[in-house]
Amino acid sequence: MNHIEQQNIQVGEIANGLPLSIPVYRLKGDGSGKSVYIQANMHGAEVQGNAVIYQLLEQLKMLDLRGDITLVPYANPIGCNQKSGEFTLGRFDPITGVNWNRLYHFNTELVSEFAERSSNLSDEQLRHEFKAALEAEVDTRLNGPAHKLATGKRIALNLQKLAHQADIVLDLHTGPISAKHLYAPEYARDSARYFDIEHVLLIPNEFDGAMDEAAFCPWWQLQEQLAQQGRDFAVPVEAYTVELGSQERIDLDDALEDANSILSYLNYQGVFKDAHYTPKVMQRHACYLKDYVAYYAPMGGMVQYKAKLGEHVKAGDTIAHILRMERYLSEEPLHPVKFNQDAIAILHFASASVNQGTELYKFFTNTFDL
Amino acid sequence: MNHIEQQNIQVGEIANGLPLSIPVYRLKGDGSGKSVYIQANMHGAEVQGNAVIYQLLEQLKMLDLRGDITLVPYANPIGCNQKSGEFTLGRFDPITGVNWNRLYHFNTELVSEFAERSSNLSDEQLRHEFKAALEAEVDTRLNGPAHKLATGKRIALNLQKLAHQADIVLDLHTGPISAKHLYAPEYARDSARYFDIEHVLLIPNEFDGAMDEAAFCPWWQLQEQLAQQGRDFAVPVEAYTVELGSQERIDLDDALEDANSILSYLNYQGVFKDAHYTPKVMQRHACYLKDYVAYYAPMGGMVQYKAKLGEHVKAGDTIAHILRMERYLSEEPLHPVKFNQDAIAILHFASASVNQGTELYKFFTNTFDL
Amino acid sequence: MNHIEQQNIQVGEIANGLPLSIPVYRLKGDGSGKSVYIQANMHGAEVQGNAVIYQLLEQLKMLDLRGDITLVPYANPIGCNQKSGEFTLGRFDPITGVNWNRLYHFNTELVSEFAERSSNLSDEQLRHEFKAALEAEVDTRLNGPAHKLATGKRIALNLQKLAHQADIVLDLHTGPISAKHLYAPEYARDSARYFDIEHVLLIPNEFDGAMDEAAFCPWWQLQEQLAQQGRDFAVPVEAYTVELGSQERIDLDDALEDANSILSYLNYQGVFKDAHYTPKVMQRHACYLKDYVAYYAPMGGMVQYKAKLGEHVKAGDTIAHILRMERYLSEEPLHPVKFNQDAIAILHFASASVNQGTELYKFFTNTFDL
Amino acid sequence: MNHIEQQNIQVGEIANGLPLSIPVYRLKGDGSGKSVYIQANMHGAEVQGNAVIYQLLEQLKMLDLRGDITLVPYANPIGCNQKSGEFTLGRFDPITGVNWNRLYHFNTELVSEFAERSSNLSDEQLRHEFKAALEAEVDTRLNGPAHKLATGKRIALNLQKLAHQADIVLDLHTGPISAKHLYAPEYARDSARYFDIEHVLLIPNEFDGAMDEAAFCPWWQLQEQLAQQGRDFAVPVEAYTVELGSQERIDLDDALEDANSILSYLNYQGVFKDAHYTPKVMQRHACYLKDYVAYYAPMGGMVQYKAKLGEHVKAGDTIAHILRMERYLSEEPLHPVKFNQDAIAILHFASASVNQGTELYKFFTNTFDL
Repeated sequence: MNHIEQQNIQVGEIANGLPLSIPVYRLKGDGSGKSVYIQANMHGAEVQGNAVIYQLLEQLKMLDLRGDITLVPYANPIGCNQKSGEFTLGRFDPITGVNWNRLYHFNTELVSEFAERSSNLSDEQLRHEFKAALEAEVDTRLNGPAHKLATGKRIALNLQKLAHQADIVLDLHTGPISAKHLYAPEYARDSARYFDIEHVLLIPNEFDGAMDEAAFCPWWQLQEQLAQQGRDFAVPVEAYTVELGSQERIDLDDALEDANSILSYLNYQGVFKDAHYTPKVMQRHACYLKDYVAYYAPMGGMVQYKAKLGEHVKAGDTIAHILRMERYLSEEPLHPVKFNQDAIAILHFASASVNQGTELYKFFTNTFDL
Repeated sequence: MNHIEQQNIQVGEIANGLPLSIPVYRLKGDGSGKSVYIQANMHGAEVQGNAVIYQLLEQLKMLDLRGDITLVPYANPIGCNQKSGEFTLGRFDPITGVNWNRLYHFNTELVSEFAERSSNLSDEQLRHEFKAALEAEVDTRLNGPAHKLATGKRIALNLQKLAHQADIVLDLHTGPISAKHLYAPEYARDSARYFDIEHVLLIPNEFDGAMDEAAFCPWWQLQEQLAQQGRDFAVPVEAYTVELGSQERIDLDDALEDANSILSYLNYQGVFKDAHYTPKVMQRHACYLKDYVAYYAPMGGMVQYKAKLGEHVKAGDTIAHILRMERYLSEEPLHPVKFNQDAIAILHFASASVNQGTELYKFFTNTFDL
Repeated sequence: MNHIEQQNIQVGEIANGLPLSIPVYRLKGDGSGKSVYIQANMHGAEVQGNAVIYQLLEQLKMLDLRGDITLVPYANPIGCNQKSGEFTLGRFDPITGVNWNRLYHFNTELVSEFAERSSNLSDEQLRHEFKAALEAEVDTRLNGPAHKLATGKRIALNLQKLAHQADIVLDLHTGPISAKHLYAPEYARDSARYFDIEHVLLIPNEFDGAMDEAAFCPWWQLQEQLAQQGRDFAVPVEAYTVELGSQERIDLDDALEDANSILSYLNYQGVFKDAHYTPKVMQRHACYLKDYVAYYAPMGGMVQYKAKLGEHVKAGDTIAHILRMERYLSEEPLHPVKFNQDAIAILHFASASVNQGTELYKFFTNTFDL
Repeated sequence: MNHIEQQNIQVGEIANGLPLSIPVYRLKGDGSGKSVYIQANMHGAEVQGNAVIYQLLEQLKMLDLRGDITLVPYANPIGCNQKSGEFTLGRFDPITGVNWNRLYHFNTELVSEFAERSSNLSDEQLRHEFKAALEAEVDTRLNGPAHKLATGKRIALNLQKLAHQADIVLDLHTGPISAKHLYAPEYARDSARYFDIEHVLLIPNEFDGAMDEAAFCPWWQLQEQLAQQGRDFAVPVEAYTVELGSQERIDLDDALEDANSILSYLNYQGVFKDAHYTPKVMQRHACYLKDYVAYYAPMGGMVQYKAKLGEHVKAGDTIAHILRMERYLSEEPLHPVKFNQDAIAILHFASASVNQGTELYKFFTNTFDL
């Protein structure tokens, strides 16, 4: 059985002076395979990833590992303990409103400078040195004056440092009420087939502060800049945001399925010796990020969600009913809400009460088979 | 078709000076039957009652009514618009923490005084005058100096005034994640069988600030005091808290079932002429309030709820698993949680994340057939 | 210099499984004087008490102590770390809305039973055994099944256990925006003069769940029951809620003054040998709890508070202006708000934005010199 | 006396179906001067601007106006009514965390297209048509499908439409605890001297979603693009964010001073005939946005703020003390916090309780006389 090591790293301090720490679990491979970093629960209510890490650990300790594996449950010790009523208010910093998953760091200039001065490096050297440069970039900030780091930035940088050490990065999230789906960088669309996830969002090479982007954008931009120099360099890193379903629940059976899906992908990546994990046969629907459409509530009211998650809706289908009992006599109290495009319903809002303009649904449109 | 009248009553003002109002719908009966008051959504996240009022109105407008019927959806205009993340934070005043459903008024001395000076009244007169006295008591407060009324008290008193005018009062609530259940005063246990609700909580003659208690406690105490005088007086008012299931959702089909359940009870009370509503045949489980047990999380962690709502659990059954990934190596990470009594699981917490001491489940114990 | 011992006691666990602990500082006396328990910051935003404990420790370590002294800053590790925007939302449990300072325990039956069976005890024995009984009562609950204790109850009981071991209990709080004031039990009005606090609220023998009441009500009720038996027994315990001024601020100079005020009281109680602390000469204004009047905002709007805290207002004085810019044209936009009683303004709401019914001010009325 | 017209415009609907509206006050000039748009309270806790609008209206109704003036208090009906404890949680949407003042609209392509096709227009025509184009751009979105507009976007666009109609735009804000300061676009630094505000932040031509930027960036970029064509075109619009001091308070005397400051600026801009408003003589300190430094709490704890707002601190001065009572024995409990640059303290956090990384202070550095 593989040895699992636990390290608790401190990522901040709260007002009564107590340290905020996160548990980091590590398994060593024999060094012949890619290394892996998996984190969960960066958003407080999105807890199912912790159960997936549990199910992963239960199996990883029995496997023959080529690559090192690092797993971080409870990645955000503020977010996962922030309650407001029964709800875990952990999507944004309660003080500033900033989304915890928009605080990772990316310095484009680092890529340009590196691309310029690295023409004499082999691919192997280049991978090694660029990885070191990314880590150093994060370290400089973490080790700089404490008064330059905002709370969420310090948490993000500590996690990003772990992520930059890996070749494969998985950030486990959930939607509010949601079908499973995967954010995959466009260059990794082939690999995305090895997850047991029906809905795949293909995202471009643009940095918006999220963990997956922080892990792959530097490498992808490096590849593009080297291509401009005429050099063919394969992006050696893959990073995904894995959306496991709905928030505010854990389910260990479902977590086992998600763990197997991840193990299938890792097996394909050669992380294990003699492992049996293979992807399920399923139709996989892909959609470009630009075609991922938010549908906002056209009026305030109480919503009955009609379009089932994962369901293919036809243009003109009723996707929800909005009940408005304030105007029972003066208008039709039950409003059908329609969407004028063929689409797959991916997620909807977690509550029946919506303001005009609340994000009601998100849809894949212009989908195609992956 | 019956005429429905809408009146908007002002129950407060918010910080930008805009009025807070609630819609009141009224249907007139021929005066030969009991009058009815039904409200919904006093707690912000508990929205299904609005859908039930919709389904009630759709049918009531077609029925031959003996008694007047008053219906109030969105009873709490602050609570039902108080968002915190996706959640509706409407169980308590966000400023003070006070539960919106603990602010109704009851003056015990009024009962004693009335009982003393009413010995020469007929039952009919007594019902009439005591009802007037209860209304006057509320009016005195509502019409007193504005600076003596806290925000929630003003809302509660406005609703209570409407409730005191009726013979039957239904306050529509939901649990967090919950089976349907009914709070019935012990004296009305026979009537409780006319609702299509399997789980009935029998509550004693103690005032804790809730609407149902505010409606029946004065009458029940009057009955008890008259009994001490040797007079046999039947409590002429019935009041219930109807728990419709889970919060943060509306479902119109389910609301139709709940509307029919309420119409069955009202039909039994003689509110309609020639109506066909009858209760469903079902086993009804009763429990005294003292045997309604809260089970608090024995440790902090992430919960998978195992006991299904409405399910009969046996002493020693595992009701939940608590996952603690902080201590994967140092303790068993998955803790079974057991309850040592035979019980029916009625509701559980809405989130998977719990602190030690969070109310995990509520159980009926020592149940008996109603 | 006296030895200070630190013990961290665990009072709960949060959702990621980490323990909640509070620091307890102890100094030993020579056993010849009363023992003292002082806690601060039970309400999250009320932080000045921590600074007072700092200033107390700085002096206590230099003093010659007769009695043992226990000091607990950060008494509520959930409350003092609960942020919502810039504000510390720590007055009530964010999940349930329950005021953290209404969760202490009091079993009246324990008093009755004890009074009955203790007639043959000397005063000394009685004090000793009743103290032991109060501690045992708390221990039984703390050591009972974990699933019977709600989060806030567990915190409260842990603190109450420490408090029951002492003869003098001080619970350091603040108002929202507030003048300094003291909650003193009516029987201790003479002692209240030894604090440097101008405004003293005299409270009756009624338990409402607060720490001070939990500390003195059992003893006061015991005294009353023994008096009914014809026995004259002096209440041997004093407990106070010390309101240090406004929340959300610390000021170390002010904290030194408050520390000196407390040391003056403790010196009067004989806790020190050869100490020089004496109360300041000042006029002290007292008021019975029944005359402590809440003044609610008579309308929604933006408030400019005019009555200064600690100020004596005359009946009919303007205590605030409420600006309502929604109705600049249709009504006088600037409303003077008046109070029709002579009073001392003790505290006001922390924000300029008020709903109709928000608690605007609290006033001492019918005041008299202490 | 000038006629003041009130219009209430609907900017959304809340969950119970009630409309969200904002009051718009308008005064007509004789058409010979610049038109003015002033709004307040976009962030819920920043209420002082409403009092300034009150003081402006009181004077504007007496003045001889050249330009039209539009004033909007309570610009954000969600934000200014969102309470969490005593605090107004109105800086960001409670559902999404998005800062309400980062949602204004700017389409850079509109500027490029317009610059290209407008070479044959006179300056007068150009101003007229570009203004129309900006309004049309907003209208297109407001009148498009309701399901494409998020809640905050709808509010922002409604306000932006009013702003685009004016030549001068003032967005009245406050800091948390703050000295008065002004955000001025770099091109308007001369005009900034006509406000009675000592601290002026000069901001570049970069759009980050705020109202002031939404008002001036299109015009400034147009100017730059026309300059590239060799055409000299003066930016005809000025827009400022006016930071009035601290949040959660109104003060009518102070508001009168701020109103006079604004009237002084407007008088300089020729908005009035024969008015006497002139700026106060004062030293004005300017700072570029890049030199506006956030200082984050280097550790968690309780803060006593030492650097006074508006105060010039020297490199190495102690700006705060952080008290950490958790570690009274194991480390120095009172930590001095120093800043290593000469600076002016502009604002600090509103609470004494800070996490490591909470924004403690903001400083002007590298300041110069304006």
